[in-house]
Amino acid sequence: MAIEKDEQYSGFHRPGIRLTEPMHPELTALRPGRIAPMVYALHMFDKAHVVMLTEVGLIPWADGAAILRALRALEKQGVERVRAELGGDLHAGEAYLIRTLGEAVGGRMHLGRSSGDLSTVGFNIRERDRLLALMRGINDLRGVLLAQGREHAEVVMPGYTFLQHAQPVTLGHTYAAWAATLGRDFERARGAYGRVNRSAAGAAIMTGSDFPLNRPRTAELLGFDTVHENTQDAILELTPDDFLDAFAAVAILHGNLARWAEDLTLWTTSEFAFLEVPDRFCGTSSIMSQKRNFLLPLEIKGAAAAALGGLMTTFYGLKSPTGTPVAERHYAADALWQAFDTAQRGMRWLGEYLPLARPNAALMRERAGAFWATVTDVAGALVREHDLPWRTAHQIVGIFVRKAVERGLRPSEATTELLDEAAIEYRGSPVGLDPISLRAALDPEHFVRARKLYGGPAPEQVRERIAEMEANLGADRRTVDALADRLAQAAAKLEAAIDRIL
Amino acid sequence: MAIEKDEQYSGFHRPGIRLTEPMHPELTALRPGRIAPMVYALHMFDKAHVVMLTEVGLIPWADGAAILRALRALEKQGVERVRAELGGDLHAGEAYLIRTLGEAVGGRMHLGRSSGDLSTVGFNIRERDRLLALMRGINDLRGVLLAQGREHAEVVMPGYTFLQHAQPVTLGHTYAAWAATLGRDFERARGAYGRVNRSAAGAAIMTGSDFPLNRPRTAELLGFDTVHENTQDAILELTPDDFLDAFAAVAILHGNLARWAEDLTLWTTSEFAFLEVPDRFCGTSSIMSQKRNFLLPLEIKGAAAAALGGLMTTFYGLKSPTGTPVAERHYAADALWQAFDTAQRGMRWLGEYLPLARPNAALMRERAGAFWATVTDVAGALVREHDLPWRTAHQIVGIFVRKAVERGLRPSEATTELLDEAAIEYRGSPVGLDPISLRAALDPEHFVRARKLYGGPAPEQVRERIAEMEANLGADRRTVDALADRLAQAAAKLEAAIDRIL
Amino acid sequence: MAIEKDEQYSGFHRPGIRLTEPMHPELTALRPGRIAPMVYALHMFDKAHVVMLTEVGLIPWADGAAILRALRALEKQGVERVRAELGGDLHAGEAYLIRTLGEAVGGRMHLGRSSGDLSTVGFNIRERDRLLALMRGINDLRGVLLAQGREHAEVVMPGYTFLQHAQPVTLGHTYAAWAATLGRDFERARGAYGRVNRSAAGAAIMTGSDFPLNRPRTAELLGFDTVHENTQDAILELTPDDFLDAFAAVAILHGNLARWAEDLTLWTTSEFAFLEVPDRFCGTSSIMSQKRNFLLPLEIKGAAAAALGGLMTTFYGLKSPTGTPVAERHYAADALWQAFDTAQRGMRWLGEYLPLARPNAALMRERAGAFWATVTDVAGALVREHDLPWRTAHQIVGIFVRKAVERGLRPSEATTELLDEAAIEYRGSPVGLDPISLRAALDPEHFVRARKLYGGPAPEQVRERIAEMEANLGADRRTVDALADRLAQAAAKLEAAIDRIL
Amino acid sequence: MAIEKDEQYSGFHRPGIRLTEPMHPELTALRPGRIAPMVYALHMFDKAHVVMLTEVGLIPWADGAAILRALRALEKQGVERVRAELGGDLHAGEAYLIRTLGEAVGGRMHLGRSSGDLSTVGFNIRERDRLLALMRGINDLRGVLLAQGREHAEVVMPGYTFLQHAQPVTLGHTYAAWAATLGRDFERARGAYGRVNRSAAGAAIMTGSDFPLNRPRTAELLGFDTVHENTQDAILELTPDDFLDAFAAVAILHGNLARWAEDLTLWTTSEFAFLEVPDRFCGTSSIMSQKRNFLLPLEIKGAAAAALGGLMTTFYGLKSPTGTPVAERHYAADALWQAFDTAQRGMRWLGEYLPLARPNAALMRERAGAFWATVTDVAGALVREHDLPWRTAHQIVGIFVRKAVERGLRPSEATTELLDEAAIEYRGSPVGLDPISLRAALDPEHFVRARKLYGGPAPEQVRERIAEMEANLGADRRTVDALADRLAQAAAKLEAAIDRIL
Repeated sequence: MAIEKDEQYSGFHRPGIRLTEPMHPELTALRPGRIAPMVYALHMFDKAHVVMLTEVGLIPWADGAAILRALRALEKQGVERVRAELGGDLHAGEAYLIRTLGEAVGGRMHLGRSSGDLSTVGFNIRERDRLLALMRGINDLRGVLLAQGREHAEVVMPGYTFLQHAQPVTLGHTYAAWAATLGRDFERARGAYGRVNRSAAGAAIMTGSDFPLNRPRTAELLGFDTVHENTQDAILELTPDDFLDAFAAVAILHGNLARWAEDLTLWTTSEFAFLEVPDRFCGTSSIMSQKRNFLLPLEIKGAAAAALGGLMTTFYGLKSPTGTPVAERHYAADALWQAFDTAQRGMRWLGEYLPLARPNAALMRERAGAFWATVTDVAGALVREHDLPWRTAHQIVGIFVRKAVERGLRPSEATTELLDEAAIEYRGSPVGLDPISLRAALDPEHFVRARKLYGGPAPEQVRERIAEMEANLGADRRTVDALADRLAQAAAKLEAAIDRIL
Repeated sequence: MAIEKDEQYSGFHRPGIRLTEPMHPELTALRPGRIAPMVYALHMFDKAHVVMLTEVGLIPWADGAAILRALRALEKQGVERVRAELGGDLHAGEAYLIRTLGEAVGGRMHLGRSSGDLSTVGFNIRERDRLLALMRGINDLRGVLLAQGREHAEVVMPGYTFLQHAQPVTLGHTYAAWAATLGRDFERARGAYGRVNRSAAGAAIMTGSDFPLNRPRTAELLGFDTVHENTQDAILELTPDDFLDAFAAVAILHGNLARWAEDLTLWTTSEFAFLEVPDRFCGTSSIMSQKRNFLLPLEIKGAAAAALGGLMTTFYGLKSPTGTPVAERHYAADALWQAFDTAQRGMRWLGEYLPLARPNAALMRERAGAFWATVTDVAGALVREHDLPWRTAHQIVGIFVRKAVERGLRPSEATTELLDEAAIEYRGSPVGLDPISLRAALDPEHFVRARKLYGGPAPEQVRERIAEMEANLGADRRTVDALADRLAQAAAKLEAAIDRIL
Repeated sequence: MAIEKDEQYSGFHRPGIRLTEPMHPELTALRPGRIAPMVYALHMFDKAHVVMLTEVGLIPWADGAAILRALRALEKQGVERVRAELGGDLHAGEAYLIRTLGEAVGGRMHLGRSSGDLSTVGFNIRERDRLLALMRGINDLRGVLLAQGREHAEVVMPGYTFLQHAQPVTLGHTYAAWAATLGRDFERARGAYGRVNRSAAGAAIMTGSDFPLNRPRTAELLGFDTVHENTQDAILELTPDDFLDAFAAVAILHGNLARWAEDLTLWTTSEFAFLEVPDRFCGTSSIMSQKRNFLLPLEIKGAAAAALGGLMTTFYGLKSPTGTPVAERHYAADALWQAFDTAQRGMRWLGEYLPLARPNAALMRERAGAFWATVTDVAGALVREHDLPWRTAHQIVGIFVRKAVERGLRPSEATTELLDEAAIEYRGSPVGLDPISLRAALDPEHFVRARKLYGGPAPEQVRERIAEMEANLGADRRTVDALADRLAQAAAKLEAAIDRIL
Repeated sequence: MAIEKDEQYSGFHRPGIRLTEPMHPELTALRPGRIAPMVYALHMFDKAHVVMLTEVGLIPWADGAAILRALRALEKQGVERVRAELGGDLHAGEAYLIRTLGEAVGGRMHLGRSSGDLSTVGFNIRERDRLLALMRGINDLRGVLLAQGREHAEVVMPGYTFLQHAQPVTLGHTYAAWAATLGRDFERARGAYGRVNRSAAGAAIMTGSDFPLNRPRTAELLGFDTVHENTQDAILELTPDDFLDAFAAVAILHGNLARWAEDLTLWTTSEFAFLEVPDRFCGTSSIMSQKRNFLLPLEIKGAAAAALGGLMTTFYGLKSPTGTPVAERHYAADALWQAFDTAQRGMRWLGEYLPLARPNAALMRERAGAFWATVTDVAGALVREHDLPWRTAHQIVGIFVRKAVERGLRPSEATTELLDEAAIEYRGSPVGLDPISLRAALDPEHFVRARKLYGGPAPEQVRERIAEMEANLGADRRTVDALADRLAQAAAKLEAAIDRIL
């Protein structure tokens, strides 16, 4: 009789109950790999559910104690390993209990629960934990970028639009810009965290239970911030919505990392040659003996490609009538966990590389001035010193640049005479700019230093903003720590509740 | 001389300045359509920028007044029309000023600004305004769903997983579930709103300006919540990040709408036949005289497909070194504005249809009980009344259902004898469930009413939660109103500032 | 000195040559998994390249013989295993040779070759082999469908558009339709095969070699149909183009499989109930004892979602200046190999399931007639027997159906009186259709049997077309066999060439 | 009575027939824009269908003649315009006939036809025509590239992998590589053409008709190559399959164009500076007077992004049970027609630009030699002149490059002494390469000229291959002409058949 301790117990889906045949082996084989990433969360839910059932009297106190004792014993042997040996599916915890305690006791755990809330809680806990880790990873990279930004606040370099020289910037200002972007990535991850960290526990397969489950208690023991207010939403609507929510946050981050990876690839070409790369990040070639190929950015871009594909997989896979896509969730989840892993990897790599990326400051500064990228300030000088309307000044300088380029002059060879020639062509009279003003306006360092406005690239302004951003980063780090603390407190509360029952 | 009032002025990019040829006509032709959706925002920025320049003294007071007077005159003639006639690009405002005031005055407006912050501010204002409207649209549909949810809280219907009968739910619980999901869509849109409503004004093309622009003042006049802290981020990093941020929010919403559209398509088949459809939402056939095809859900799904494609367009199009994709932004923006439009349309349609979607309540209730979807409660009764462990009860009922199906019995024909036969097969002894308990457990209405737990489908519980959700909806509506008020106040402040200068 | 036999040889990329540091361990760790799926192809290329070099005299005969002897020894030990132990990268073959023969001999293999043509040839051989297997898989499923189509040519069932009843079809006609679609999938795979089975060997890293390599000879030994006519295309342009080419073919196939999986999910609901499902393809539930969830179609749809995501990954990952995405190729390749695997799996599963999918023929036939789906033929009868214009007949029947539905009549209860009533309403006079004609027209079986036109659902027509399609399938099978033969002959030629050298 | 000539006729879907209400105006408004792109094809089908019906006697000869006369009258007034005025939907042709001839005659046209085959034939004809035009566009660009390839066969330039200097190539070899890639795009378009140019006419809505339609005759008159062998496939399976088939071909082409656009963006930076750009393809800036932004490539990339998004729209939108997505097809079709348009535009632009893209040959040649990209040939020289194993030579040269770089030497400053130093470090003895050999090996022009192997970059080899490729292009052009001829002949046959009936 199955009620006894049953060392051969193989799960409720065995043939002879509802179904008459064993499941197709290829289908059975798909399960364990899918469950593995959230096995720790399922175990946590097993414990919290039993605590709640015992507390409200739906499991006799002694049985609850026996089960919790067994689950702690399971822990000692290694949750991942033991559950994997028992088939590795959502219900491996129950299988362990029935094997060790018999169905008369172990068969009591699943009351009021279903694969639905098991998997949803599993997904949500893992999403929450991955988002929390991601927030830490984002903050770490922000920290690196702000430190490097301060370090390189005086390294003048060209800025580009359309990949053509636009205006001089600094490497420090650039790194601070990246950190600012990551600040939004942090906010997105934080927003998604708040939405995924809600409890579906007790929603069972969509209607909850006719047993008086204490849903807030289970939620509290699992560290959820709140309880989903509709059991049908919690199971049927939630998974696609939450997957896409978390995935969008991590995919946008991947997109940002990929963009910077494109920059790094470009900046380390022989033509741009802005940044150096330590050998450890390079490969060479089996035929071209000269090769030093910078590998990191390509891996970051490849991972972003996979993440974006995964987002598409999620949208497509979960497009079906409500509740229909069940297996499809796992194709999405595989992609999601991988996207988290590679986003973390990419951020860690950038955090490792950037402090070692020595800039070729002299070359960068020279380039910043070599392609007329400073002439905005020649027009500005005409406005400031000769009260020209901006558009008039801008057009005169346009003619000036065209003539200089036609004559093969470099910025350092341009003269106020040429500027006057342009002004005469435009409006019939010269402008008479002081040659010293022209030289100053054309100097990229002067260009950068003059931009002291809020958020601008002038070094002291950059440092001021970085100080402020570091303060914000500090606050964001504390936010993450507080979230982690809440989870730790919930875990402690769970263990304390178990202790109490034992 | 170009400084005079110039009725032929055709823009700073005319040949003879920096470039020697007119632009390829196919390239020129691309512009106006792209700018049209944000022309109102550009005009607002024109005004705010001139106010700020005048206040800080970078434009002489009289010139500032002349420009602002001209911009108001432009308004009277119709911003869209006049700017379109002037070529319709980002700088049509300046073209108008130069045509009417001459370059000596009109040429002063663009000081310290660039196409970079013009387009970024334009994108951001439109994103913000579309998100605000989207939040209203979401709230309106939530309102409809909650009202319909209360109305249909007693309409028992089958719930599905794997598209197989799972458990009875109610139509009201289902609508409330949809409203709960939309609550998360609201949060996502709200989160994105907070990120896009930050001011890039004054960041020019990435470095801001060497003129002392008052960036907070421009931001205030444009209704932005805050000022971007890094001018390079504000122009080069922001657009891809903000596009994807807003797009993710609206694409996930589209995904939710598409899922419900799948449900509606299914529920209005002859086989399911849950909901009725008024003729106005239907097409018929040119060959099959019997046809009534429900068109709304297909359009909603088609629009979701286009939105998802647009999200991919955005990711792919903006994957390039920082600052490189400029034209590509417009392919993304086209897709984004369309996705907003169709999301609003879809929600409006659902809001129009659902109150008219009379449920075939008797059929739905019958189906809810016809495919053994209530047997969870038979197992529950064994637990409650005979203290069986859940798993034991569940397995016995599994055998009971299998035998009943093998024998061609319907749930109404199942007996406690059969249940005992199953129990004996499982564990050697009968369970002796009271036939009254069996009948009750198999009744779908009883099933639903017994689920009073928090968030469950019992009608009074659904109504209680709906009341709570309506309160939250009220708060969310007030949030939207407050955001709209802030924008209205900023607009008033802008006009007041103009009045002061005039 | 490294020239000697070197049992510690660790590859040309070791520190102290071009680079000074060992590669970052996380980067090194990425390689083997990526190469594993094409290790057999690399080994084949190693052999063919050495044969060619030896034949043209670029390797001394004795050295060539020694290398080939060693490569055969490697084979005996297991190519996968040995190469994996040697680091598993593209150059594990060379590492083996240098370890066992010393660099003086083993170091000669790579002359005129590069990682570029190694990986391209590896990708292409695997793509070719996967496409060939896919063609077989497609043909196998076509065979099943055609056999089942013939079997079920008389099983009348409803056909749908908009998921509303449209017209009666047969299950056999449906299966034949699926087979016809797969015929196009076959053509696409065949087209892609022809494009990927071209030889990049000898193109090295983009320029080939200044040594007189015999590219046609290597191509012949590797079973390629032809040699790429431009070495730069062969290495830099080819991989994205070929990946997308093969991926498009397999992704479209996945899309078709997913559509049919949607059908199967629907047809096995309790509401549709057209097909039966053996238990082995089902799962049950941990809470709902009644559950029999048909798992196969969901896995097929999930796999299609992953394939589509992978296609997106490939487009996005390979969007970069020519030659830049190197690592990104592997993210695409991972997705591509997986998409092939799951397409094969899905087709194999369908081929296993469909012969077991017993149709509920009586129910299907009844449904085909129950929702007015045959009224096209009532209009047809009016045209045929009373010479009404089609549109007149169609409109009269439209009114007839509307009135019948309004009065709650079923098709079997509809009368010629009602039809006359409709006709009078439409055009003022009755139509006088013979009641026998009306009954015949409304009969779904009659409907189907009357459609004898080319390609129509009449059983004898379906069987005729199936016979023709089987003939075409036979030809396609012979095409595949011929392609496989060519590869086998090439392999034999390669071994014979090795024998000759030895 | 509706049978008379009816100038107010508004279509069979008017209220009072099957439906009681007019369709929701927003739904009605969606139709015309969707049909517009294929209106010419629908008109052609109207004519061919009537010819066939008349020939087989399903329309009386006189009525057939009257209808065909009316359709020719419609043509004279302008098919697009007249049909648009009549509501613009699939059935505007019938509406015209009923308005002008009355339903008694005009109502005969639609016999045996449905919106199903109307739209499928419409889609297929437009797909076929767009693919044909695309093949011409591809061939035109191939022609330009081959001509430019010949022109620039001696322009030595750097080749890149990982965006790092790899080996010298030539601009001519590069252009020939692009032409070779386009050859595969041609094959894909040709393959898709063969699959979409099959006739669904007569398949009606999935079962064809019980009237004896002559499907081969209609197919012949419409220029289809063959008739679909299964009416259900022809309507329900075909559209997603054909859409994706055509879309994959054009999306892969877009991907190739986008890659070259990335190259052109890079090659026209100040840092690379390989190609010149005429002003007409450039924009300038409203703030940076120096700006010349090359716009074409960005538009090409943006269009590729939109095309890729459209492909995803198609996959996602058409993922539903067979026959369900009807409206969704139009979202896919919109994207598909746009992708064709922009692919053509992009190819036309490249064909316009490339002949004007003067290379900076001297700079390109210098760069090709400046970053050690020729050292493959130093290793080659060691193999050739000193019989070193390749790997030994390659490693020695690796050390040689490293030392040179460490010492700040440029390739022109490298000596055989340094090479010997490297050799000694590697294997204990010098290699004694002739200094003349070293100089030759390091010369990029020599590098290129030495690569005479099949498909290599040596100018005479490039020209030989180009000659061959031009011959193939000629054959492909003739293929396109032959396809176009067949269509013209079919059109003539249709008009002749109409003449005969008249």
